[in-house]
Amino acid sequence: MANVNENFFDLKNSHVFETVLKKKNEYLEKNPNCKLIHLGIGDVTLPLTNSVINAMHKAVDELGKKETFRGYGLVPGYDFLRKKISEYEYQKRGIDISSNEIFIADGTKNDAGNIIDLFSENNIVAITDPVYPVYRDTNIMFGRHKIIYLECTEKNNFIPQLPKEKVDMIYLCCPNNPTGSVLKTKDLQKWVNYAKENNSIILYDSVYESFITEPDVPHSIYEIEGAKDVAIEFRSFSKLAGFTGVRCSFMVIPNEVNLYNKSNEKVKIQNLWLRRQSSKFGGVSYITQRGAEAIYSEEGMQEVHNNVKYYLENGKYIKTELKKIGFTVYGGTNSPYLWVKVPKGETSWGFFDKLLNEANVITTPGSGFGKCGEGFIRITSFGSKEESKEAIRRIAKVVNVD
Amino acid sequence: MANVNENFFDLKNSHVFETVLKKKNEYLEKNPNCKLIHLGIGDVTLPLTNSVINAMHKAVDELGKKETFRGYGLVPGYDFLRKKISEYEYQKRGIDISSNEIFIADGTKNDAGNIIDLFSENNIVAITDPVYPVYRDTNIMFGRHKIIYLECTEKNNFIPQLPKEKVDMIYLCCPNNPTGSVLKTKDLQKWVNYAKENNSIILYDSVYESFITEPDVPHSIYEIEGAKDVAIEFRSFSKLAGFTGVRCSFMVIPNEVNLYNKSNEKVKIQNLWLRRQSSKFGGVSYITQRGAEAIYSEEGMQEVHNNVKYYLENGKYIKTELKKIGFTVYGGTNSPYLWVKVPKGETSWGFFDKLLNEANVITTPGSGFGKCGEGFIRITSFGSKEESKEAIRRIAKVVNVD
Repeated sequence: MANVNENFFDLKNSHVFETVLKKKNEYLEKNPNCKLIHLGIGDVTLPLTNSVINAMHKAVDELGKKETFRGYGLVPGYDFLRKKISEYEYQKRGIDISSNEIFIADGTKNDAGNIIDLFSENNIVAITDPVYPVYRDTNIMFGRHKIIYLECTEKNNFIPQLPKEKVDMIYLCCPNNPTGSVLKTKDLQKWVNYAKENNSIILYDSVYESFITEPDVPHSIYEIEGAKDVAIEFRSFSKLAGFTGVRCSFMVIPNEVNLYNKSNEKVKIQNLWLRRQSSKFGGVSYITQRGAEAIYSEEGMQEVHNNVKYYLENGKYIKTELKKIGFTVYGGTNSPYLWVKVPKGETSWGFFDKLLNEANVITTPGSGFGKCGEGFIRITSFGSKEESKEAIRRIAKVVNVD
Repeated sequence: MANVNENFFDLKNSHVFETVLKKKNEYLEKNPNCKLIHLGIGDVTLPLTNSVINAMHKAVDELGKKETFRGYGLVPGYDFLRKKISEYEYQKRGIDISSNEIFIADGTKNDAGNIIDLFSENNIVAITDPVYPVYRDTNIMFGRHKIIYLECTEKNNFIPQLPKEKVDMIYLCCPNNPTGSVLKTKDLQKWVNYAKENNSIILYDSVYESFITEPDVPHSIYEIEGAKDVAIEFRSFSKLAGFTGVRCSFMVIPNEVNLYNKSNEKVKIQNLWLRRQSSKFGGVSYITQRGAEAIYSEEGMQEVHNNVKYYLENGKYIKTELKKIGFTVYGGTNSPYLWVKVPKGETSWGFFDKLLNEANVITTPGSGFGKCGEGFIRITSFGSKEESKEAIRRIAKVVNVD
């Protein structure tokens, strides 16, 4: 009898974004002519830039001719892309990460879910609360049930504090989804020191790196002394270059980073990852990788940074206007996300419903990211300038903040 | 202390294809001017067809304009592709598989490795010997160590026989990699009946389906009565349409197919799969899915079938010529693979080395697929017509078959 992996029954029934989608569809069914404004899911809206489009057309043409056709790519990604990432994202910032430490894949959701296959199911996991739910869910599916929650609230400025217990795997997300907060050098140094003392691994999700505007926020965890011994960094082209529907990410696994076997001997994570991928992954589309490569030129970088600037300006506008209405608003400065306190007496889902039904604006309820998210909603700056303005106009009409 | 998943140490050190690659590179280092002929790894060589290229260009252009840009796709795949697959691959053959039973992903290697996350680690797995190594390796990584090998030899015409033990998960690959053999209706019916009697699941890898030429070979396991209750089918655009570097596959999970929980209650595999994917997968590139859709037109189908025909003709030529030299050769009729018996007294790796060093032809040693593969090599028909001819000329020169 084929039995099920019973760990699946320990998952909560639905992902917050699915419930939001369901509520949206129900509303539209009752109000088919309503023009909803979507500031909920973190999806980009600006098209791919010219450099990317041109590179992808060229790659498509190459695959259409016998002389330039390419079949199976390399599982860790093509060297042309790994080298450009190493140069533009690390070497140019004085960070010593080489191309053989970079592994291309088709999304940070995939990478963050897959890398944990290499870890023992007995490891203790630390995740923040609130948190991007997939860190928790993928560990539960795997049977890793010892999860410590690091509470991130207004009191600690949404900065996760070192746990009292020993933990083995630590998820940090900076700039943070959903709070929009950042970890500065001194915050990160504490975590790196903790990981070194405890032989823990930091899983550092930095997919919103391109939104960093403040000078004292590290762009990579490897700016921190000792991090190459204990950290894996996740990055993505989704928010940087509008690749949410194209799918390209990379993960940095430094040469120095290890797990430990039963005899406390070091096992190189790079080797484990390559072994896993050689059996479970076929690489990323050549066309996609050529598109990603194209952003690493003067023109390509300028184009994607203009797009990020556009989103950041939306965020700044929304934050300023929400504050004028009387809201307490966090995030937005180094992030596409605003973390907005709901009016007194409201709950996350209650206020979500109010904005959906009365202002026709879709947000994400903070409680969907964990119990410390209760009392907040997340608003994204990924809409257009016009939508952001219209959303503010509508919210101002229906909300009365004490 | 971050501990490793110790199951990784139960894996064999290297994948056969990696060893082949290493040997090839070592040879080329010593003989840099040598022109090797590659009939080893099963990678296509013909370029993408016109319909696919045109559709991909159009999709790239759509992503470059604000009005037609698309961000996150749907995790199970776009409806436009799922509907075409349902129509062309199933409905037109009189098989009742609907679009909501089809799940798009970026490779059968990924799908076959990922679906087993849903199964209990205590399930007993049956795989054939010889076998595509990733079925075995992905189960071992997961900690599923009870593996029953179904021996496929000349004696049983390479047809796996029902096991004496009860097994819960059964991998069948038809047309077979590496032997090129096929399961006919009566063979498959036995397996479906076994699975129904034992509440087992058949994982049916049919990525070489487009190479089937004989009328009595099922194109889908769902041609067999009762299969929708017990089988998951894997298909891919890699060999059908030259997508090895573009990455697109699909998996059929029928509405009826279930696993069992501890209380022997049914749990729908579709629901488990969607739950997994919502946390671990972000969908396949829009450009890729539009490219795949384009083969489902009269012209698109004609183009890809011409390519398959080209490979089949290579296979037929190689088989005929090898037989003239005195080899015993299986496969090729419904498959891109020829399963060639090595001369008396030779081993798989020994004969592989001989062909590499003396004929400069790369093959794959049969023993890399399991102990019953010893005494064989696998030759692919994915080279060009000219390469296939030249390979035969070289082999004839250096080999003396009793």
